[in-house]
Amino acid sequence: MKTISVVYFSNMGHTRLMAKSIAKGAEQADGTTAHLLQITGEQITQGRWKDESIIEQLNQSDAIVFGSPTYMGGVSAQFKAFIDAASAIWFQQGWKDKIAGGFTHSGSPSGDKQGTLLYLVTNAMQHGMIWVGTGEMGMQENGVNRLGSWLGPIGSTPPDFSGGPVQVDPGDLLTAELYGTRIAEAAKKWV
Amino acid sequence: MKTISVVYFSNMGHTRLMAKSIAKGAEQADGTTAHLLQITGEQITQGRWKDESIIEQLNQSDAIVFGSPTYMGGVSAQFKAFIDAASAIWFQQGWKDKIAGGFTHSGSPSGDKQGTLLYLVTNAMQHGMIWVGTGEMGMQENGVNRLGSWLGPIGSTPPDFSGGPVQVDPGDLLTAELYGTRIAEAAKKWV
Amino acid sequence: MKTISVVYFSNMGHTRLMAKSIAKGAEQADGTTAHLLQITGEQITQGRWKDESIIEQLNQSDAIVFGSPTYMGGVSAQFKAFIDAASAIWFQQGWKDKIAGGFTHSGSPSGDKQGTLLYLVTNAMQHGMIWVGTGEMGMQENGVNRLGSWLGPIGSTPPDFSGGPVQVDPGDLLTAELYGTRIAEAAKKWV
Amino acid sequence: MKTISVVYFSNMGHTRLMAKSIAKGAEQADGTTAHLLQITGEQITQGRWKDESIIEQLNQSDAIVFGSPTYMGGVSAQFKAFIDAASAIWFQQGWKDKIAGGFTHSGSPSGDKQGTLLYLVTNAMQHGMIWVGTGEMGMQENGVNRLGSWLGPIGSTPPDFSGGPVQVDPGDLLTAELYGTRIAEAAKKWV
Repeated sequence: MKTISVVYFSNMGHTRLMAKSIAKGAEQADGTTAHLLQITGEQITQGRWKDESIIEQLNQSDAIVFGSPTYMGGVSAQFKAFIDAASAIWFQQGWKDKIAGGFTHSGSPSGDKQGTLLYLVTNAMQHGMIWVGTGEMGMQENGVNRLGSWLGPIGSTPPDFSGGPVQVDPGDLLTAELYGTRIAEAAKKWV
Repeated sequence: MKTISVVYFSNMGHTRLMAKSIAKGAEQADGTTAHLLQITGEQITQGRWKDESIIEQLNQSDAIVFGSPTYMGGVSAQFKAFIDAASAIWFQQGWKDKIAGGFTHSGSPSGDKQGTLLYLVTNAMQHGMIWVGTGEMGMQENGVNRLGSWLGPIGSTPPDFSGGPVQVDPGDLLTAELYGTRIAEAAKKWV
Repeated sequence: MKTISVVYFSNMGHTRLMAKSIAKGAEQADGTTAHLLQITGEQITQGRWKDESIIEQLNQSDAIVFGSPTYMGGVSAQFKAFIDAASAIWFQQGWKDKIAGGFTHSGSPSGDKQGTLLYLVTNAMQHGMIWVGTGEMGMQENGVNRLGSWLGPIGSTPPDFSGGPVQVDPGDLLTAELYGTRIAEAAKKWV
Repeated sequence: MKTISVVYFSNMGHTRLMAKSIAKGAEQADGTTAHLLQITGEQITQGRWKDESIIEQLNQSDAIVFGSPTYMGGVSAQFKAFIDAASAIWFQQGWKDKIAGGFTHSGSPSGDKQGTLLYLVTNAMQHGMIWVGTGEMGMQENGVNRLGSWLGPIGSTPPDFSGGPVQVDPGDLLTAELYGTRIAEAAKKWV
């Protein structure tokens, strides 16, 4: 049994929808369990993040997928607070050789989201993790990887002032779901 | 009189259309002249680029805008050959304090194009140049910065097998044109 | 009179020493005033940063230099909380066309610090600012730019368990000081 | 039997020494063979690279490690010509799910080398490969990862005008050697 954890921050809810799709995809692989772990502002005191249960769950996972909206060209401050707190794990190289992945979401199609993913790779490499990207050709007819991102799946949703429920492009969600399966299969291949 | 040079590589023609729009925009500023300088494979021998007339024109410019399609996540090899050859200028810091900008084009909306622009900034900083970005909010109604890129303008054009003329989205070309004007105005502000 | 503000986060004190050197260098240019503005965890509540006086000072500055230690490959969470809060300014493009710069510090010589600077450039471009880099050749005899960074000055200090005062390599501090002067001169050239 | 290929460009010889160390380390893992494949300017005609034997060897490898000096903030033009030519493989996703890694060398300790590694990751992700980084804590007493790089090993060598043989810091070579072993072990773990 392989355990895949998706740890993410989401304010509006778009990144959460992508996280859920990744978890859904991960569970579609045989013999895998997926966990959704949400970073929130309430876990942060004077700029420092703490939540032992999340850290414990990540420590016991075979793969960790990191997700955050792209705010001002990078991960949200709240997600960075989680990453900085995880430097205690880094110091012991506690996540070394785990499978890693990442994803992000913002309003515009490009939106400096590659920078966020390059950052997530950099952080994962400091942890000694193994990075798995999207693995899908761009602009497929069914919407898979319609935006063209290979470091990890991305989603874009234009501002919506209608007051309706938060939605993400079906192609972006399908990309996320396939990514979840890919991460789970990678965890199984990595013995 | 300020001189703006747009130095670019283009294979299919999309990047050339963006280069032309930037030059057009630059000439719309009062008291400016724009030059289009094309990097080609013919200027390269055994991997090394040489064209003294292009270098001379760049040396005499107040602003240099660097442009290349994004191939496999970065500038084209031909454009990199030009950049590597310009290390002779770098060694003398011959372009120090000139205004710099950059742009790129590829098939998909995101398409790892931010990475290309981050590279062009890195190169310009080694030269000691001053970087000017897009300066336009994303996803404007008239198509300006529809893709969301602030390091410099980007364009995306899906593959076209119709055999018709090469085209670039009008919003992307307008973004490029406004950028040309912005670069020219920056050159005038920088005294 | 030109106003240069250095806004930074520092935990151990190394980044503060670099910030001070930049401010010192900025004041060495004729007709400039420099301000040091420190981001702290106390300014953050539930992950969100707020300090109106800092924002007001930045709004009135001709140049803003952004500085943070590199933690886990990026700016500290506290500094990112400041950046995210400044998205209110970004929305109005309140810092558009101001001069921008950045710097960082970490333990090891390379230490993924370029990624931090690339991030700071990305953020500044979203604000429509004009980026000025180090402008100094690498590995100069007097220690200037000894580490080789052109997007902005960097410092590295190995861990010190002696209990003595926090120190930063004199070459790194001199690089920072020259950068402060360069930023101030850029603010004067930009009319 | 696992096959590890190190494909690299080297002009002065420093990157070649690092490539050799990686190959040496790879062969220290049981049941692995390492190949050194050199990209040269002679393989390039009018800016386009071609060498079928190198491509064939890479196609048959379980892991590919990409290496280039950092010139003007990125891979050398010659190495980029190889990467661009390999887009024919990318189009078929011929290297999908192979293990990937990268390394670089330049004169100064930081020297914008992270940007080169971030680029190599981006390219590998377009190919659908699995990235393995250094996996070593920074600044170890025996010189391992003395510069602090986790995306892949880096080396720095100050200019040497003595006319003596090309040398690279022993710590950098040891880091490269350990990386070769790590890549080979990853290829064995990836089933």
